[in-house]
Amino acid sequence: MASTLKFLALLVVSSAIVQIAMAGDPDILSDFVIPPNMITLNGTFFTFNGMRVLNDAAPPTAFKVLKASMTEFAALFGQSVSYAALQFPAGSPNPPHTHPRSAELLFLARGSLQVGFVDTTNKLFTQTLEAGDLFVFPKGLVHFQYNADAQNSALAISAFGSANAGTVSLPNTLFTTGIDDNILAKSFKTDVATIQALKAGLAPKP
Amino acid sequence: MASTLKFLALLVVSSAIVQIAMAGDPDILSDFVIPPNMITLNGTFFTFNGMRVLNDAAPPTAFKVLKASMTEFAALFGQSVSYAALQFPAGSPNPPHTHPRSAELLFLARGSLQVGFVDTTNKLFTQTLEAGDLFVFPKGLVHFQYNADAQNSALAISAFGSANAGTVSLPNTLFTTGIDDNILAKSFKTDVATIQALKAGLAPKP
Amino acid sequence: MASTLKFLALLVVSSAIVQIAMAGDPDILSDFVIPPNMITLNGTFFTFNGMRVLNDAAPPTAFKVLKASMTEFAALFGQSVSYAALQFPAGSPNPPHTHPRSAELLFLARGSLQVGFVDTTNKLFTQTLEAGDLFVFPKGLVHFQYNADAQNSALAISAFGSANAGTVSLPNTLFTTGIDDNILAKSFKTDVATIQALKAGLAPKP
Amino acid sequence: MASTLKFLALLVVSSAIVQIAMAGDPDILSDFVIPPNMITLNGTFFTFNGMRVLNDAAPPTAFKVLKASMTEFAALFGQSVSYAALQFPAGSPNPPHTHPRSAELLFLARGSLQVGFVDTTNKLFTQTLEAGDLFVFPKGLVHFQYNADAQNSALAISAFGSANAGTVSLPNTLFTTGIDDNILAKSFKTDVATIQALKAGLAPKP
Amino acid sequence: MASTLKFLALLVVSSAIVQIAMAGDPDILSDFVIPPNMITLNGTFFTFNGMRVLNDAAPPTAFKVLKASMTEFAALFGQSVSYAALQFPAGSPNPPHTHPRSAELLFLARGSLQVGFVDTTNKLFTQTLEAGDLFVFPKGLVHFQYNADAQNSALAISAFGSANAGTVSLPNTLFTTGIDDNILAKSFKTDVATIQALKAGLAPKP
Amino acid sequence: MASTLKFLALLVVSSAIVQIAMAGDPDILSDFVIPPNMITLNGTFFTFNGMRVLNDAAPPTAFKVLKASMTEFAALFGQSVSYAALQFPAGSPNPPHTHPRSAELLFLARGSLQVGFVDTTNKLFTQTLEAGDLFVFPKGLVHFQYNADAQNSALAISAFGSANAGTVSLPNTLFTTGIDDNILAKSFKTDVATIQALKAGLAPKP
Repeated sequence: MASTLKFLALLVVSSAIVQIAMAGDPDILSDFVIPPNMITLNGTFFTFNGMRVLNDAAPPTAFKVLKASMTEFAALFGQSVSYAALQFPAGSPNPPHTHPRSAELLFLARGSLQVGFVDTTNKLFTQTLEAGDLFVFPKGLVHFQYNADAQNSALAISAFGSANAGTVSLPNTLFTTGIDDNILAKSFKTDVATIQALKAGLAPKP
Repeated sequence: MASTLKFLALLVVSSAIVQIAMAGDPDILSDFVIPPNMITLNGTFFTFNGMRVLNDAAPPTAFKVLKASMTEFAALFGQSVSYAALQFPAGSPNPPHTHPRSAELLFLARGSLQVGFVDTTNKLFTQTLEAGDLFVFPKGLVHFQYNADAQNSALAISAFGSANAGTVSLPNTLFTTGIDDNILAKSFKTDVATIQALKAGLAPKP
Repeated sequence: MASTLKFLALLVVSSAIVQIAMAGDPDILSDFVIPPNMITLNGTFFTFNGMRVLNDAAPPTAFKVLKASMTEFAALFGQSVSYAALQFPAGSPNPPHTHPRSAELLFLARGSLQVGFVDTTNKLFTQTLEAGDLFVFPKGLVHFQYNADAQNSALAISAFGSANAGTVSLPNTLFTTGIDDNILAKSFKTDVATIQALKAGLAPKP
Repeated sequence: MASTLKFLALLVVSSAIVQIAMAGDPDILSDFVIPPNMITLNGTFFTFNGMRVLNDAAPPTAFKVLKASMTEFAALFGQSVSYAALQFPAGSPNPPHTHPRSAELLFLARGSLQVGFVDTTNKLFTQTLEAGDLFVFPKGLVHFQYNADAQNSALAISAFGSANAGTVSLPNTLFTTGIDDNILAKSFKTDVATIQALKAGLAPKP
Repeated sequence: MASTLKFLALLVVSSAIVQIAMAGDPDILSDFVIPPNMITLNGTFFTFNGMRVLNDAAPPTAFKVLKASMTEFAALFGQSVSYAALQFPAGSPNPPHTHPRSAELLFLARGSLQVGFVDTTNKLFTQTLEAGDLFVFPKGLVHFQYNADAQNSALAISAFGSANAGTVSLPNTLFTTGIDDNILAKSFKTDVATIQALKAGLAPKP
Repeated sequence: MASTLKFLALLVVSSAIVQIAMAGDPDILSDFVIPPNMITLNGTFFTFNGMRVLNDAAPPTAFKVLKASMTEFAALFGQSVSYAALQFPAGSPNPPHTHPRSAELLFLARGSLQVGFVDTTNKLFTQTLEAGDLFVFPKGLVHFQYNADAQNSALAISAFGSANAGTVSLPNTLFTTGIDDNILAKSFKTDVATIQALKAGLAPKP
């Protein structure tokens, strides 16, 4: 009985914490926020080891994102900052997307990269970056990156001014989530067959 | 000479104000913010007449948005709220788009409307609304509306919790701003010919 | 026993959520916030039907407010926007009041309306609105509306840049809550008899 | 000519600064904000002497407020904090009022004080304070103080979490700013004669 | 069994509330926030008596701070304001420190005081204050106060624009928390012996 | 004359903009903020090349910080994010310091690093990092890094959730800005001679 009660209590607290964790990105009212079931608090809580794989020799064979947001790294909750590492094999794109909750400040650690974003007046801004360059994608705008180099991979480290910036991938959001073919055809001023072909191309392969 | 100086001074102030107007949506430090060249301040400054056209009998022949953001209605600057009126002829969509700086709370004043949005986990949420219904599109997410009724127009009034929510129309942002055909083809996992056909369909007609 | 435990757990979570719901109106750290006891999440959660009554033929016989804040419409929590529908029978006022947590942007859907607010320098701003007009009442200031038309009702839809703007009705706040007669008499530079008469007039009728 | 130009330029900057000063109470992006025409910046800029009069022996004969907001003390701009000193002769009230942009945290330095506020559910909270006591009036709510002591004056120091909290005095806002007699009579459920008597009592004496 | 359950439930809620209380200092979404186990809510909740000791004749023999932050005064949670009373015996300093979450606005109630802060360009700003003077220490900067008077004590009341400003005392933070001698010696460009002497001087006396 | 006027006007605008740039780090009301004298706006404005020197073979001989805040990279204004690159020769420390306006999220790109911070309860948290590790220093707290490796340099990239986080170096702030010897001696519980020796050691060498 006691263990059932304890389990239930932990479940309740966890559920409450999940909700709390969703409640804001402003200044917190404490130095940091500790998860309720933490037993020993030390420097390890403030450390994230999940990007050590970047040291490995072999890069991935397709574009890949390693995130360190508050989901992967709980100490970030309330600190309004997070990271993502972007690994680009030769010739690979990071398709057009937005981050609903933050600007992105990209640091190109290795290789070269074509980058761009479109503002709310539909003006496109592009640049070709070398290693060591920074580029800022303003908050909420559609942007993309492309490693045009046919031989060499590229590595970028991107910072966000939110512990949970969020990502909206536009090809997937538009064409793999079940939005009605007819609405999409009218919206993109094309026919239903073209929409269905796009959906088929983007659908996850079994 | 004096009038030239005066003109110049006003120009300078206006330019400064344009920049200031970009500086934030938090609590202001005054009751309201008055443009620098305002001579008489009275109730008219706090009034916007640009939506009286909604009273007219004949609706538009294509989907149309009437905005009352701080661009059209200066008194909204610093008040963190704005409106848009959405006029849907029979069978017309408001194509997928995002608002980078606010959630949208839609009130359906007349007609019926299919609405939907996709969250950052790529889950689609849809609903069919009747007149009098409200629907909230969370901040920064891709959403759309569609008047599926083949006979009757629809009218929605949408509120935003920012004086300048901004709009990113996805068909136009992706396919009419000059993003490289090759990057788009790789991103949407299709060929360059399909991208070029989509671009041609969405391009403004001369 | 099990059901008692479950009930208790839900009670605990609900109580926690009520407190959490009070904790802020800034950017949330997720797309939206889901109540802890929600079983199926779909488009219905983001829909509010409570204003369909506005479609009904017969307006109310006294001034009436229909609210869609986060209290009535849980999906608004964290989205920083809400609505109220204001129904004015002929000749009826919405007495002077303030909203502590937001400006109000009023859209006059039907009829005509006299509106006004007083700023912190005690300057009164008034306007007479026609259907289709918008008027903004700056955050925290005393304001009122009055349907001066002796024949026709009026309907306004008001947007707020907070999920819970709050309302402080001044006649009730000042004269029906038990503030000491003597303090009120000294404050309004009148006698206790006048204060008591005002209190009697505003007291709820049995 | 040169001096005219210089004068004009300063005027332009000052006007711009007045507007800027209205643009927000969040974290600033610098340690502090310096007015544009400041020649020597030293510790004096961060000092305010306007409350030394509190050291004087003779208190005022009527209730009086000494403010140190960003209007009187420019260094407060962007620092989100300000003060007011409240001097209460024996038997004097600070009439019901609100602060639109901050809670008030009152410290009673001398004497005793009856205090109270009304929340948005129309519940009255009151307390009698002794010297050394603190009382918090939540943001945007109607509140008052009253020195019920017939012999002794009282002195309170109130802190605000905004550099410009603003004050809405309700007797003056409601009855000395020209709101239509008829609207007030209907709102306070009394007759026009009572409204006119209240207005006459509160009108400034010539 | 029932009491065990009740105890457990309270524990769960309290734990949740502790976390919630850490979640932010922005506008709250309610008039105020009530702790979950509160039975009777009245004016006492909004009152803090912990500073009545300031009325006592005998000042402390060493520098002493009396705080009224949300830790000591729960009603401050969400109201973005707090107080500290600073008692300075003759000749005593308040050592250099920072407040991570707020500017400090000091009101000198009695005595005289030397004050100063250093900005992020390493410029020192100092001032000597008389009773009745105010001084603002900008957010997050290193500052100190010193009662240079060899005969008389001083009393200051400091306001903060956060319910929990936090304090980082630099002598203690640097030299009593266990930072490695070698790192400190290199950082302060001195030898390990000097660091160890400083540590010994600041160490709590048994 | 015309060119004088134009020069004056630009000066005025620039001065205004400097002030505006200090006004806040919240959501801006536009996609981005353009400096007033910008002639051609393109992708270059959103690019920062100042860190390409990191590609150079030879590291610096003393600890060195390369910043990309809104001071060096104007496009960051309003985007709430910035970077710093920290270059550590073998055996070098980054002395204890704070950032008043942001947490710091450090990514160790090369080498190893001892890191630590002290919270407001005077608890020290330390960790030894390997290449690829992340560590978060919470907002406003005292922290340091130390490359204990006697042979190899280290390189870290740190992200901040503010466009201008600011840095308070404690050795310099405390001992090179002219704070009175006597106040420092009393604060650090040491003698004036020790303070003077520390000051001499930290003083810039001619």
